[in-house]
Amino acid sequence: MNKGKQLYEGKAKRIYATDQEDVVWIEYKNSATAFNGEKKAEIEGKGRLNNLITGLLFQKLAEKGIESHFVEQISENEQLVKHVTIIPLEVVVRNIAAGSVAKRLGLEEGTPFKEPIVEFYYKNDELGDPLLTEDHVKILDIATPEELQLLKKEALRVNDVLVPLFSEIDIELIDFKIELGKDKNGHILLADEISPDTCRLWEKGTNRKLDKDLFRRDLGGLTEAYTEIYKRLGGTI
Amino acid sequence: MNKGKQLYEGKAKRIYATDQEDVVWIEYKNSATAFNGEKKAEIEGKGRLNNLITGLLFQKLAEKGIESHFVEQISENEQLVKHVTIIPLEVVVRNIAAGSVAKRLGLEEGTPFKEPIVEFYYKNDELGDPLLTEDHVKILDIATPEELQLLKKEALRVNDVLVPLFSEIDIELIDFKIELGKDKNGHILLADEISPDTCRLWEKGTNRKLDKDLFRRDLGGLTEAYTEIYKRLGGTI
Repeated sequence: MNKGKQLYEGKAKRIYATDQEDVVWIEYKNSATAFNGEKKAEIEGKGRLNNLITGLLFQKLAEKGIESHFVEQISENEQLVKHVTIIPLEVVVRNIAAGSVAKRLGLEEGTPFKEPIVEFYYKNDELGDPLLTEDHVKILDIATPEELQLLKKEALRVNDVLVPLFSEIDIELIDFKIELGKDKNGHILLADEISPDTCRLWEKGTNRKLDKDLFRRDLGGLTEAYTEIYKRLGGTI
Repeated sequence: MNKGKQLYEGKAKRIYATDQEDVVWIEYKNSATAFNGEKKAEIEGKGRLNNLITGLLFQKLAEKGIESHFVEQISENEQLVKHVTIIPLEVVVRNIAAGSVAKRLGLEEGTPFKEPIVEFYYKNDELGDPLLTEDHVKILDIATPEELQLLKKEALRVNDVLVPLFSEIDIELIDFKIELGKDKNGHILLADEISPDTCRLWEKGTNRKLDKDLFRRDLGGLTEAYTEIYKRLGGTI
């Protein structure tokens, strides 16, 4: 497989064509961004850790019957994935109140929800990735109501796999964001990444944060935390 | 009927007990507020016009089978209504993009929606009345999913009556907000007010605004516009 021309550069990844039409080459960058790009930094080793963790989680999800765009790890900071067109929604699953939802609803961080909730945010930097209702998704023609139910169901299935998986390594999965895409046949696939950049992960007992909030809140120790997650998941450094 | 002790004072109304347990006395104030109370003014005649318009619209809704808390007009700025416990949601119906939804979704003001959409906002000044998803409403225990569907249906029924009613007097109903409450038997009733303070009303053809945006956007002529609405609706000054 050869790396072709760059197709896209996002905040955290570069995407390249390959000599196979259905497969693209993702390079994870060390860039950390938060608050819609207002806060930025380069963190040595972050791209590598997110690439490794994402590959590992996508493999574990596949073992539980949840298909994703992941094809194979090709280097410490690169992976091959199926080519999909990303649906411009960030699908967020929350088990415990933290971050924006805690502020929005006036809940204390750490308050558990009776059942997981799913939120949709519009992937649109110019608008600041606003929260959307299902009616908004419909009128923006981003997804049909049927597709939206499918996205929700898929997000909850991912949650059902990830919660016990993290629990076994003494981590509480507070919330996470996924993105999904359509392949050329219109089939919807889990895509993008699942990593401490896109999850809130709190160590059980201590509530120590092992995720991107370390960067958002200037707490430091991000590389160590991500390494800890990778090792606990069974990765070898 | 006698006016008893004051039960509540809101931004736009004072509510008093009466000698009948199930009935309260509402006095409409001349206060205008916007942007979660940040902008304030007293506008002579506004309370009277909102009281008169609300009474008239609640009567017209009743004729179409939509029950509300309205009992009777008792003076130019007072009405009697059934006592209900307000559900802390602002239920918004939108036919055409304007205001916050236009900003949120990046749509030009005046863009019609294919079908009306319903939004829920949390009535909570401290939190700035945030937009809620249906999952948020559920976890906040504000309403059951069944009640939420009922609120949505009722809001759309109100829209189905109001759109043609305003259309006949050459006004486009862009959007509106309602509040609903529960009586002592748990029966859900349309409550609060429906007036140019709670609707966006644009004159057909000219798109002249005849609603609270005149105050929000410092356009002036609010009393004249509200009087115009009241007269077109058949009210006599």
